[in-house]
Amino acid sequence: MGALSGVGVGRGIAVAKVLRMPEPLAPPSDEPLAADAGAEHERVRQALEGVAHELQARAAAAGGDAQQVLEAAALMAQDPAILDDVRARLDGGANAERATWDAYGAFRDMLTAMGGYMAERATDLDDVAQRVVARLRGVAAPGVPQSDEPFILVARDLAPADTATLDLERTLALVTEEGGPTSHTAILARSKSLPAVVGVVGLLSAVADGQRMIVDARAGTVVLDPDDASVAAALVERESRAAASSAPITEGALADGTKVPLLANVGSPKDAPAAVALGAEGVGLFRTEFLFLDSSSAPSVEAQTVAYTELLQAFPGKKVVARVLDAGADKPLPFLNDAHEENPALGLRGIRALRATEQILRDQLTALANAQAATEAELWVMAPMIADVEETEYFVGLGRELGLRTVGAMAEVPSIAVVADQVLEVADFVSIGTNDLTQYTLAADRQLGSVAAFQDPWHPAVLRLVGMLGEAGAKAGKPVGVCGEAAADPALAVVLVGLGVTSLSMSASALADVRAELLTVTLDEARERAARAVAARSAAGARAAAAA
Amino acid sequence: MGALSGVGVGRGIAVAKVLRMPEPLAPPSDEPLAADAGAEHERVRQALEGVAHELQARAAAAGGDAQQVLEAAALMAQDPAILDDVRARLDGGANAERATWDAYGAFRDMLTAMGGYMAERATDLDDVAQRVVARLRGVAAPGVPQSDEPFILVARDLAPADTATLDLERTLALVTEEGGPTSHTAILARSKSLPAVVGVVGLLSAVADGQRMIVDARAGTVVLDPDDASVAAALVERESRAAASSAPITEGALADGTKVPLLANVGSPKDAPAAVALGAEGVGLFRTEFLFLDSSSAPSVEAQTVAYTELLQAFPGKKVVARVLDAGADKPLPFLNDAHEENPALGLRGIRALRATEQILRDQLTALANAQAATEAELWVMAPMIADVEETEYFVGLGRELGLRTVGAMAEVPSIAVVADQVLEVADFVSIGTNDLTQYTLAADRQLGSVAAFQDPWHPAVLRLVGMLGEAGAKAGKPVGVCGEAAADPALAVVLVGLGVTSLSMSASALADVRAELLTVTLDEARERAARAVAARSAAGARAAAAA
Repeated sequence: MGALSGVGVGRGIAVAKVLRMPEPLAPPSDEPLAADAGAEHERVRQALEGVAHELQARAAAAGGDAQQVLEAAALMAQDPAILDDVRARLDGGANAERATWDAYGAFRDMLTAMGGYMAERATDLDDVAQRVVARLRGVAAPGVPQSDEPFILVARDLAPADTATLDLERTLALVTEEGGPTSHTAILARSKSLPAVVGVVGLLSAVADGQRMIVDARAGTVVLDPDDASVAAALVERESRAAASSAPITEGALADGTKVPLLANVGSPKDAPAAVALGAEGVGLFRTEFLFLDSSSAPSVEAQTVAYTELLQAFPGKKVVARVLDAGADKPLPFLNDAHEENPALGLRGIRALRATEQILRDQLTALANAQAATEAELWVMAPMIADVEETEYFVGLGRELGLRTVGAMAEVPSIAVVADQVLEVADFVSIGTNDLTQYTLAADRQLGSVAAFQDPWHPAVLRLVGMLGEAGAKAGKPVGVCGEAAADPALAVVLVGLGVTSLSMSASALADVRAELLTVTLDEARERAARAVAARSAAGARAAAAA
Repeated sequence: MGALSGVGVGRGIAVAKVLRMPEPLAPPSDEPLAADAGAEHERVRQALEGVAHELQARAAAAGGDAQQVLEAAALMAQDPAILDDVRARLDGGANAERATWDAYGAFRDMLTAMGGYMAERATDLDDVAQRVVARLRGVAAPGVPQSDEPFILVARDLAPADTATLDLERTLALVTEEGGPTSHTAILARSKSLPAVVGVVGLLSAVADGQRMIVDARAGTVVLDPDDASVAAALVERESRAAASSAPITEGALADGTKVPLLANVGSPKDAPAAVALGAEGVGLFRTEFLFLDSSSAPSVEAQTVAYTELLQAFPGKKVVARVLDAGADKPLPFLNDAHEENPALGLRGIRALRATEQILRDQLTALANAQAATEAELWVMAPMIADVEETEYFVGLGRELGLRTVGAMAEVPSIAVVADQVLEVADFVSIGTNDLTQYTLAADRQLGSVAAFQDPWHPAVLRLVGMLGEAGAKAGKPVGVCGEAAADPALAVVLVGLGVTSLSMSASALADVRAELLTVTLDEARERAARAVAARSAAGARAAAAA
């Protein structure tokens, strides 16, 4: 029996046998082609065709987002330009595995150099190349393992293609050696209410297929080869947490009755019924990008009014916080910003891009004001990437001019926390986006694996900035919410409240766990936990100090 | 007589007639080729040859860095692949200007997509294309204007190629509509001690060639068509400032005698004599990258020891603060980090990259310890991109283990300021890199024109973070220096001292101006200015409040 620890996602417990993700294949050798090039052409063609069929079959079985990802991968296996390239390499004397590997590699490098969305597709190409090489080699393809029994999936980290094809019926928990609280694995776990522990150092060298494991997401631990008493205790604890999570839906509140409204993050009006069913007391982050993507021009005021009205109608008498368009060079929109930028995360994005193209912002605010007038919801509107009081004055002024009643700022740029006193004099409210705030405060790209350890909202520097915003909000008598991933972590949610945060918004699937956890502490206890966390010297230290 | 204002660089005053940089040429028309393609081939070939000769001649006349830039541009005008592409476009029916423009444009897009150093060369290609098109069109080529009289150069912004070819004998001041305090224009002005005002909104529509202008860098203002009394007053003020700047070299101090050591930033041992001559009391930032660039492997301990010893010998009994290798994916070194990163400024860089490749760091610290033992200088060593106390403990521990006496951290990542109390318990000192600290605090790429307005160290959020570091330093009894561009701004230098900064390091050419300005205030006055600046609501407001 041995224990390892990492960053837990959710509050759940799972007990099952481990299935490991196969490691990627070793790269092919550089040995020159020994066989006849013509015969090898045919062997590669068959392998590509086989992979394409396999991916199409899995796509048809998967449905939803997974279907699209897999269909795109099947197309990549049939790309005639790549096949031509493979043939040219064979004719040049490369062996079949090497020719395939290099042809896909060259294509991947090209996509990577293009940056943005295309670069994100590059990993999918690697996946296809690995499958083809596995077929040529006659070995099992890497990828999510299949099993008839429930299992705990252990992996280095999960790629989007893996998460799309995961058998959710039988996967009881996810445990990864790499990745942080905003990795794909963590996001998947949260959205599917799967317990997970990510960033478990030493995991892969300690765990074998078929080994029994206890995963405790709330504690952030995994126990290998547990004895029967530990298993029994874990199962009892699992039932008690499940009972708490399925407790009747009540308004978010602490043990002493202090109200903490629990809101949902939604990406389109379609998400509203599920959020309501799970007890969301409103919407804390309504992302409006869905209206702007896949379009060569901004949507009309009329089209936007219809969509906003549809969402607001689902929340009569309740709060809905809409964020205006959040786009930049990493999610380029031809009508807003499609310039090449060396560091798009530090570029012309959010309010900066909207201000440079003000008519788009005016149209969106006008449509939001129309929806406000047409419904009974309490509409709040905020802008992303606001850095200081000058930008706050600009945005609040424009919102008021166009008829909006409640106008605020998202806190993602570190400067806004440092001048929170000034900003909260002007803004009606602030909502903290913890993912970006963490990324900028630690100067570590939230998407980059090699610096993933920095992307932890428990870092005392991030918590202190949240505390500055909370304090400024209390002084000005204005609400300060959190709508980043941090709000979905029950233990962190308590600390955030202790730092002065007045509402929490999260994926609707996380509401029950957070609701249950808040009911276990008073405001004074939350403040004590927060004080211990901000005095800690690392994210792990803060997590431990809050739990102590 | 009209006045405009922007961000001043330096303290100087200039009075002269204006010469404007020609605006870039209008793009060529899309009209199909009317003439004979063969004749056009020859016309384009001659234009390219002419531009190449012109650039070679200017290269030979320029010498130094400018020579290299111009020689590289001449090669771009003779690139046979581009000429082939132009011919193919002519044969395809494009007119000569359009064929040239598009051929260079395609090449530029390729370089831009490659990112990093290659992308920076892209502007140089634009310059060559403009020169060729100007020849084909029979008009003057854009670029730095020439004159026999002294002049004030007015431009939208200066590119590196422009600054390399500027006639410094006759240029009395630089004034630009765009660009911030870290733009190429500002860096050039500072290194050449030229007065400059950058970011002057409305400049280009207000100023004509030959107009008389007063530039006051300290005030950050330009006066157009000044009357004779204003000119006379400006000339008197110019003499009085020149007298202050050429005052005898004394140790850096305030009017009340408070010592503020004034140190130099140096990039190689060769810079030492000039720094000593200009009165540097030591070196506040010794950049060690010069040893690592242009090399496929890290330099040996022996080679590094020789270089560090050479620099330290120039400063017996004085402080030399060495920064260990600062590299990341934007300045890739094959032995350290050459991964593709979407946002290299937020990537595996500085101490993160060194920690991932620890032997390189150990070798460098060993060589620094050798140089410490071999010389009389007081060596301090710091690491870039330290985010928190955990990284501080790692670096300080390693430095001590390898025999270094004084080990500290650079403050560039916002988190380090927020947890400054913890960091200054462990570090022997902290040195603030204001450029990166500003970039991350405002989440705005310091190299990106569209967000240049954010790159201003006067921003109250940046000043408050400096204040947190200063306060923590005072409490721990440890020095907190500044080695970013901010220290070279005399008015800002006073505010930094008022925020608790205990030493200032800058380009040696800026020492005299800062020395003179510090002597005009007491510590109490500096603190009052700092208090006014941090209470301001914008960078411009802070600048004005400090001056009030």
